[in-house]
Amino acid sequence: MINVGIIGAGRIGKVHCESIMCYVKGATVKSVADPFMNDETEKWLKGMGVEKTTKDYHDILNDKDIDAVLICSSTDTHAPISIEAIKAGKHVFCEKPVDHDIAKINEVKKVLQGSKVKYQVGFNRRFDHNFMAVREAVKQGKIGALNVLKICSRDPGAPPVSYIKVSGGIFLDMTIHDFDMVRYLSGEEVESVFAMGGVMVDKAIGEAGDIDTAVITLRLKSGALAVIDNCRRATYGYDQRAEAFGELGQVAISNDCASNAVISNSDGVTAEKPLLFFLERYMQAYVNEINQFIDCIVNDKDVPVSIEDGLQAVVIGVAAKKSLQEGRPVRLDEIIK
Amino acid sequence: MINVGIIGAGRIGKVHCESIMCYVKGATVKSVADPFMNDETEKWLKGMGVEKTTKDYHDILNDKDIDAVLICSSTDTHAPISIEAIKAGKHVFCEKPVDHDIAKINEVKKVLQGSKVKYQVGFNRRFDHNFMAVREAVKQGKIGALNVLKICSRDPGAPPVSYIKVSGGIFLDMTIHDFDMVRYLSGEEVESVFAMGGVMVDKAIGEAGDIDTAVITLRLKSGALAVIDNCRRATYGYDQRAEAFGELGQVAISNDCASNAVISNSDGVTAEKPLLFFLERYMQAYVNEINQFIDCIVNDKDVPVSIEDGLQAVVIGVAAKKSLQEGRPVRLDEIIK
Amino acid sequence: MINVGIIGAGRIGKVHCESIMCYVKGATVKSVADPFMNDETEKWLKGMGVEKTTKDYHDILNDKDIDAVLICSSTDTHAPISIEAIKAGKHVFCEKPVDHDIAKINEVKKVLQGSKVKYQVGFNRRFDHNFMAVREAVKQGKIGALNVLKICSRDPGAPPVSYIKVSGGIFLDMTIHDFDMVRYLSGEEVESVFAMGGVMVDKAIGEAGDIDTAVITLRLKSGALAVIDNCRRATYGYDQRAEAFGELGQVAISNDCASNAVISNSDGVTAEKPLLFFLERYMQAYVNEINQFIDCIVNDKDVPVSIEDGLQAVVIGVAAKKSLQEGRPVRLDEIIK
Amino acid sequence: MINVGIIGAGRIGKVHCESIMCYVKGATVKSVADPFMNDETEKWLKGMGVEKTTKDYHDILNDKDIDAVLICSSTDTHAPISIEAIKAGKHVFCEKPVDHDIAKINEVKKVLQGSKVKYQVGFNRRFDHNFMAVREAVKQGKIGALNVLKICSRDPGAPPVSYIKVSGGIFLDMTIHDFDMVRYLSGEEVESVFAMGGVMVDKAIGEAGDIDTAVITLRLKSGALAVIDNCRRATYGYDQRAEAFGELGQVAISNDCASNAVISNSDGVTAEKPLLFFLERYMQAYVNEINQFIDCIVNDKDVPVSIEDGLQAVVIGVAAKKSLQEGRPVRLDEIIK
Repeated sequence: MINVGIIGAGRIGKVHCESIMCYVKGATVKSVADPFMNDETEKWLKGMGVEKTTKDYHDILNDKDIDAVLICSSTDTHAPISIEAIKAGKHVFCEKPVDHDIAKINEVKKVLQGSKVKYQVGFNRRFDHNFMAVREAVKQGKIGALNVLKICSRDPGAPPVSYIKVSGGIFLDMTIHDFDMVRYLSGEEVESVFAMGGVMVDKAIGEAGDIDTAVITLRLKSGALAVIDNCRRATYGYDQRAEAFGELGQVAISNDCASNAVISNSDGVTAEKPLLFFLERYMQAYVNEINQFIDCIVNDKDVPVSIEDGLQAVVIGVAAKKSLQEGRPVRLDEIIK
Repeated sequence: MINVGIIGAGRIGKVHCESIMCYVKGATVKSVADPFMNDETEKWLKGMGVEKTTKDYHDILNDKDIDAVLICSSTDTHAPISIEAIKAGKHVFCEKPVDHDIAKINEVKKVLQGSKVKYQVGFNRRFDHNFMAVREAVKQGKIGALNVLKICSRDPGAPPVSYIKVSGGIFLDMTIHDFDMVRYLSGEEVESVFAMGGVMVDKAIGEAGDIDTAVITLRLKSGALAVIDNCRRATYGYDQRAEAFGELGQVAISNDCASNAVISNSDGVTAEKPLLFFLERYMQAYVNEINQFIDCIVNDKDVPVSIEDGLQAVVIGVAAKKSLQEGRPVRLDEIIK
Repeated sequence: MINVGIIGAGRIGKVHCESIMCYVKGATVKSVADPFMNDETEKWLKGMGVEKTTKDYHDILNDKDIDAVLICSSTDTHAPISIEAIKAGKHVFCEKPVDHDIAKINEVKKVLQGSKVKYQVGFNRRFDHNFMAVREAVKQGKIGALNVLKICSRDPGAPPVSYIKVSGGIFLDMTIHDFDMVRYLSGEEVESVFAMGGVMVDKAIGEAGDIDTAVITLRLKSGALAVIDNCRRATYGYDQRAEAFGELGQVAISNDCASNAVISNSDGVTAEKPLLFFLERYMQAYVNEINQFIDCIVNDKDVPVSIEDGLQAVVIGVAAKKSLQEGRPVRLDEIIK
Repeated sequence: MINVGIIGAGRIGKVHCESIMCYVKGATVKSVADPFMNDETEKWLKGMGVEKTTKDYHDILNDKDIDAVLICSSTDTHAPISIEAIKAGKHVFCEKPVDHDIAKINEVKKVLQGSKVKYQVGFNRRFDHNFMAVREAVKQGKIGALNVLKICSRDPGAPPVSYIKVSGGIFLDMTIHDFDMVRYLSGEEVESVFAMGGVMVDKAIGEAGDIDTAVITLRLKSGALAVIDNCRRATYGYDQRAEAFGELGQVAISNDCASNAVISNSDGVTAEKPLLFFLERYMQAYVNEINQFIDCIVNDKDVPVSIEDGLQAVVIGVAAKKSLQEGRPVRLDEIIK
């Protein structure tokens, strides 16, 4: 039985807590830390069967019975807590992004070198049944050499501007998942990136120095092309689609819905909207990623999403930001030499 | 160039006239007869390039230049005009049904025997791209031996009760197309039929002695089953679907729409309704059936829908009527010995 | 915490055991009984956290700590064990069918009268997201008055003939789910039933006195019609669809797949087959039904699937059997006066 | 009756000839000119009912009875023949592109000024039922302000390299349709364009100085974004899709097929491939565009696709070419001041 400590009891921390307690065999959440721990959260955690709660995550790092920590705190704390946790000999599952700053991710990477600690980054979409089906088709050669990869990723609604301000910008907050998907689905590295975007959803997002809508074109090392389109608002729900096109054909995935019921009446033929947002859409993926993390610990396997994966997605995000600012395509080797 | 005379200038007569003048090479409509011929119709026909109009169809039968006639008059005149036309040596395309009365169809059949006249019945769905695709799949063995054939056929709205009264009843007016589809899609003859139905759309239809909604189960000679469901009213348009299921799999067709545009918004994900009614849905099929009729004349081929096909569909219809009245399955050999 | 005992450790008993241990909060499986309990099963049950195992289900009925039993044994034992369990004051979840014999179900019903015991029957499809969506649409009046209800239910492959022989026949074993769906989706009772069927999958099924393919037409009390088509073999997987059609429109559900990936290549545009069989297709429904059963116990609610529901489905099944044998529609009041 | 002369009896010239003779009321093809006119073509034209054939298009321009000409000759002759035809007072339907050279298009534009001649450019997709449905949805405000427009356009197979060499390059030959679609569907002008591409289909295309696969991102005047992806080869047929996404939702179109038959078997659930290529896919659009051209002449209306539309698409194409060569986004005002 792997004893897990969770650092950060916000939305995603609770998701992982419930996953482990309900659906992950061979692991249990022993302790949860959050600087803002309150009665309500404590009650919820106890109800889930969590033994200890604390405001200080060091209590978790210092607990000898704890094998692994899940870092679900605010992004700026991911890198320093990662380093402390690795040094404490805990296996780490770190929510994405590891950091907005490449140098800080490299520090984590350095500390990891030579360590036997498992370090997995929380790119949950890699564990989604649909995206996995695309990856499998590409990997098995069903579309032959990849030519054009397309990813559409739109949130149902924009987060509050207070969030936008600390988010690192759309590319490091939202598109980062899609950048990871480009690498995952293609099995390739990115060479250069060109971003166009604008403020179309909420002027306040623009005033905060960010954009809310973007089209990003990427060239992969093989010469294949990828294109991502993002928007912070889709009235019809969480839009998560992908198409991989190649010399032998195409594989495409569409959205998931709560049911496949279709109503035909005098207004038309109407199906359900896509599942609203990431918690509904990716719940099983969240369970899967933790299950695999625990499996890697128990059976000493390589993690499915490494620190390198965490780094590369941020590098692409930084390049995209630079591309948008300078109005030109940016090569990744401009960002990391 | 085949010279065609059309008897009956109602809706379907005009459809065929336009088909021939615009889309059928090698044929022209020389003359159109209708007892209620009026200025408006005459003008329309002239506009289409028709040479002659008359109130008396004998003018067509007596015209030596006319090779073929299309019988598009009221159902009760189909059989007698068919016989006159055959005797006059004209090739005949007769709208469905040949007659409501089996004996009268047999008379036409008798007159046809030994004659060199081509006689085709207007079961237009046999010439529809979707139904043809099902037939092809069944014929090519793609589903193996047929087990269950399902046909769903619903009109967008009920006709006026005045029409219902002379229609011969739902089975001979509406389901007759589906009975023909059972024979066409399966390539088999029907052994027995059981009909359940009711008045669910319009009480006046019930008062006229008919029903408006039905489910009809048929056993085919091979033992395979078929089931048809009909309704005189579907708020979402003309519903025309079929599924053939067998030992190796299933082939299914759905409705056609004016475009495949799908709108996603806060109300859901909405596609267009099916094409409204038979003129929209089967326009190409109407052209195709006349094209093949002309081709059969020109190249002396067997017609694709024979008098026997016209007869069998009526026999099944009469059996269905009897089944509904007597509340029991009826074998076709009770109807024709 | 509700303590549950499971009687019968076959496939479905294990499914419920895993559901409760992993996904049902507020309940635990304390004890499992099976006359053929062996080492392998015991090991599996211990692994799931089950405390006790036994060969004698009386150990469960006599255990004062046990609040509820799940009857997952062979069908012929459902009724007698139900009666014993009710008398022992245990809440009962009984797998379908309660019995093949209406008289025996009535005995259970009689014992239940006046008892405070909760008694739920295992019609799992009532808890499936798609079928629930159809029910909701019908209930909310989205299709207006129901006219025609269609259910297609095909298994991926036929069970062994040894199973067929004790199954009670296709109507009581397989179609019984669809009969329940007719009542559930329509919210109505059935008036009469007409069954046509044949042996199309496996001659051995015919030699065992059963059929493997059927089309069943039902008339509901309101006059609405329902039609079910069944087959014991569908090469493309478990086919579970329904359409409810009414005065305002139609609601339809299609199959669920492991992913919605579509591959387009020179062979065509290919999606995944439906989920293979009931364990894959209805896993969440199995969890849901037990969750609701536990909720009914804890919060003293009416069960969502009552003994009456269990009875009615069998009555329709018996009527269908009689209809097939006698080749005529059978009214339910011929079966139960 | 409008008398039409067709200049160029290649594939597209024949398509228009057949359209007019079979499907366009109120017009007839009186004369066809082609420098390579041969017996076979002459025979085909006579069979269609064309009166005169010639090797010299001046015979058409000099024919007083001819009201309108269709310029279907090689691209390099479009502009000079256009000018001659306008000067001869003939209405002109000119195949796309008017020319690869902006200056030459401007010359035609200049000659047109003040003339009463109707001049329509052959962007057939504007007359396709699906693309029209997208345009209507956008125009009617169904998606609110446009945010992101996506067009996927892939040919089934690459043309011979001999064709590529005189094609003007992928952007002026193939993408030009998509550039026009961006303007048509959005109802907006383009501000800048960025093109990425490569040779992924056929090395010989690269050796001829062209590319065969591209992703092009465009910024519209409103700030909205558009993205086009092209490939010269799609194994599954002619891929012609579009999505317009905006503040209120999305409208999307998919491919058309010969039938909507779906076969389910042990291999999966397989639909037909898209219609193979432009003649199958856009046949009705070709008819529609000529019908509207004739209608504009007869009823003195504005043409639906003007010389300005022809010009703008080429300007975007030239900008895309420059963008690809220089590896940077190019503003349209760099191309035309």
